[in-house]
Amino acid sequence: MTRNAMCSMFNIEIPVFGFSHCRNVVAEITRAGGLGCLGTAYYTPEELEWELKWIDEQVGDKPYGVNLLLPQKYETVGEASLDPARLSQEHVKWQRDLLEKAGIPELPASEREELMNAELGRLHMTPEFAGELLDVALRHPSVKLVVSALGSPPRPILDRLHAHGIMVGAMTGKVEHALKHKEAGLDLVIAQGTEAAGHTGVVSSMVLWPEVVDAVAPMPVLAAGGIGRGRQMAAAFALGAQGIWCGSIWHGTRESDLTDEMKQLLFKAKSGDAVQTRSKTGKPGRMLRSKYTEAWLQPDAPKPLPMPWQSVLNVEARLRIDRARALEYMTCPVGQIVGTINQESSVRQVIYDILDEFADTMEGLGERSGLV
Amino acid sequence: MTRNAMCSMFNIEIPVFGFSHCRNVVAEITRAGGLGCLGTAYYTPEELEWELKWIDEQVGDKPYGVNLLLPQKYETVGEASLDPARLSQEHVKWQRDLLEKAGIPELPASEREELMNAELGRLHMTPEFAGELLDVALRHPSVKLVVSALGSPPRPILDRLHAHGIMVGAMTGKVEHALKHKEAGLDLVIAQGTEAAGHTGVVSSMVLWPEVVDAVAPMPVLAAGGIGRGRQMAAAFALGAQGIWCGSIWHGTRESDLTDEMKQLLFKAKSGDAVQTRSKTGKPGRMLRSKYTEAWLQPDAPKPLPMPWQSVLNVEARLRIDRARALEYMTCPVGQIVGTINQESSVRQVIYDILDEFADTMEGLGERSGLV
Repeated sequence: MTRNAMCSMFNIEIPVFGFSHCRNVVAEITRAGGLGCLGTAYYTPEELEWELKWIDEQVGDKPYGVNLLLPQKYETVGEASLDPARLSQEHVKWQRDLLEKAGIPELPASEREELMNAELGRLHMTPEFAGELLDVALRHPSVKLVVSALGSPPRPILDRLHAHGIMVGAMTGKVEHALKHKEAGLDLVIAQGTEAAGHTGVVSSMVLWPEVVDAVAPMPVLAAGGIGRGRQMAAAFALGAQGIWCGSIWHGTRESDLTDEMKQLLFKAKSGDAVQTRSKTGKPGRMLRSKYTEAWLQPDAPKPLPMPWQSVLNVEARLRIDRARALEYMTCPVGQIVGTINQESSVRQVIYDILDEFADTMEGLGERSGLV
Repeated sequence: MTRNAMCSMFNIEIPVFGFSHCRNVVAEITRAGGLGCLGTAYYTPEELEWELKWIDEQVGDKPYGVNLLLPQKYETVGEASLDPARLSQEHVKWQRDLLEKAGIPELPASEREELMNAELGRLHMTPEFAGELLDVALRHPSVKLVVSALGSPPRPILDRLHAHGIMVGAMTGKVEHALKHKEAGLDLVIAQGTEAAGHTGVVSSMVLWPEVVDAVAPMPVLAAGGIGRGRQMAAAFALGAQGIWCGSIWHGTRESDLTDEMKQLLFKAKSGDAVQTRSKTGKPGRMLRSKYTEAWLQPDAPKPLPMPWQSVLNVEARLRIDRARALEYMTCPVGQIVGTINQESSVRQVIYDILDEFADTMEGLGERSGLV
C-alpha cells in the first residue's frame, strides 16, 4: 500500500492536522502522530518564542506548524493606532447599555487601562510585526509547516520558508482563492467549508472540498469544516482530500485552555448554535450563539463596525463578560461540529476515536452501499 | 453482498432518489433504476392526475413518488384569500419601482388578472386541498413513496398511506425534527443540509447527515444537500446514509422544463451564487443570486413580508421578469452544487456519471488514505 501523501510530505504517521491557540493541544496532536499547528494571532514575538520553546521540549524532532497572519496588504489590519477613543460613540454607548442591563460590571478602574492595552496590542498587525513572528518561527527547526490565514504569503516570504525546508499552506473558502494559492507556488491548501469556526466562506464542505481538489490538482488538499469523527474523515477522503484539518474538536479536551465554564457551554450546544456573527470582528465569523451575539441582531442594534474597529469595540465587552463569568453572554469561535462535543476528552482520545470510527466506516462502506 | 436497504425497501436497482417538479425528470430517474419524486406544490388535483397518468405510462410498474405539502397546521399556509390588494402598499410600490427602473414591462392589462389568478391559485393550501392531492396520488399504484415537505404528516394520513403499501418520508434540516419523524412512525427521513436548494435549515450536510443517522437509527436516512457527483455519493455512505436524494442536479438536463435562458444562467453560476434569500417566500430559501434577490439586501429595501404574503408579492415580479426574459433578474431555487452544473446533460447521463465516479472513488479510497 502506498503511503498517504501528507504523511510522506511531513514524515508523520496519520494525516490528522489540528489547529489550536493552545500549545498543549498542538504538542499532543504531534505526539500522537499527527501535526499540530499553533495559531499565533494574538502572541507577541516574545510570547511566541516561549510557546515554541515549550512545544519543542514536548515533541522533540517531531514536526509541528504555525498559523501566521501574513496579509499581502495591510490596509485593513495595519492600523498603527487602534485607539478606542476613535470608536463611534453610538456603538460604545449601545454596548455599554447592553452590558449594564445584563448586570455585567465595568472593569475595575485601576486595571482597566492595562487590561485593555494588553488586548489591543494583540490586534496590532504590521508587516514588521508579522516579520518578527516569522523570524521566531524560523528559529525552531521542528516547525515544518507555516499556514497563512490571510491569503497567499508574499513571494519573498514563501521563498524564505522553502529555503528553510518548511512547507507552506493557506486556508481557502472559495475555489478562486485556491487557484491563486496554486499559482503562488504553495505546497498545500486547506479547503474550509462554511460550517467551520471563525471567518469562513459561504460554500459548504460537501461542495467545496471536491471543487478545490479538482481545481488545484495535483497540489494536495486538507479538508476542514465539520470534521469531528471518523465518518467525516472517510468522507474527506471520498471527496478527494489527502488529510483532515480540525479546529473545534479540540475545544472539549483537557489540554485545551478554554475555561471550564466555556467548555460546559460547548458541551450543551447543538450544531445550530454555531452561528455566523459580525459581532466579534466586523466580518462574518462562526461563533457560539450567546446573548451577546444575539443582541447585535435586534432591530435596535447598530450595524457592526468594519474591521478592525469591531474587534476594538468587542475587546471591552469580552473582558467584562469573561471576568464576570456571565455564562449567557460568553462566546468563542466554534464550528457546527460543536454538536458532537458533549463531554470532556483528551487530544489523544479524540484522535483514537476518529481513527477507530474511520476504520469501521471504511470496512462497512461497500456493504452499506450494496453497489461495490 | 447484502442488498442496499433502500433498494430492498422499494425494489429498485440503485439508491438514487431525485426530486423534480418536472414529470419527464421524475419518469427518467425511475426508468434509470432509481426513484423519481414529483413535487406537487403548485398543481391542482386535475393537473396532478394528468401528470401522474403520464408518468405511469412511462414507468409501467416501476416505482416513483410524490412530494406533498401536508402541514400539521395551516395557520401560515391556509389563508383562504391570498388577495394582493391586502399587500403592504410600501412593498408593492418598492417592487414596482425596482422593475420599472430595470425596464421590465408591466403585464399586459388584458392578461394580467388571469395570469395573476392562475399563479395565486397555486399558492392556496387548505387541508381539503391537500387531501384532494393525496386522493389523486393514491389512485396510482406505482406511487410507492410520499414525502412530506412540511413536517410529519398527521397520523390518519400516515395510516392511510401505509394501508396502500406506500412508504412515507419527510425532509429534515435539524436533528430534533428528525426525531419527531421517527416518533411519528415514518419509514425514512431525508436529511437535507443547508447547502441545498429552497427552504433548508442552517446545519451543513457534513455535520447534519451523521447526527441524523445516529438519532433515528435504525430508520434509514437519505442524504440531501450538495450532491452532484459520485464522490458525494460515496461521502453520503461514509457518513451513514442509505442513499442519496438529489434536486438541483436535474436542472441542467434536457428533460428539465426550465427555460433555456435559465439553464444558461445555471451553467454560468458558481457555488457561491446559490444564496439564501427571503425574497421569494419570506422564509430564507436558497436560490440563484440575481439582481432581484440582491435588491432586497440594499439599505433602501423593505423587509420581506412574512409567509405567505411575500410569495403573493413575488408572483407579479416573477411573471414580469420571466415574460420579459430579463436575464439579470431571473432566479430559481438551486443549491450550492450549481457550481458543477456547467453544460446540458440528460438524467440518464447524470446518473451514469454519478455511479461511475462513485465506483472509482470507492476503489481508490483505501489507497489515498494510506491507512486501511
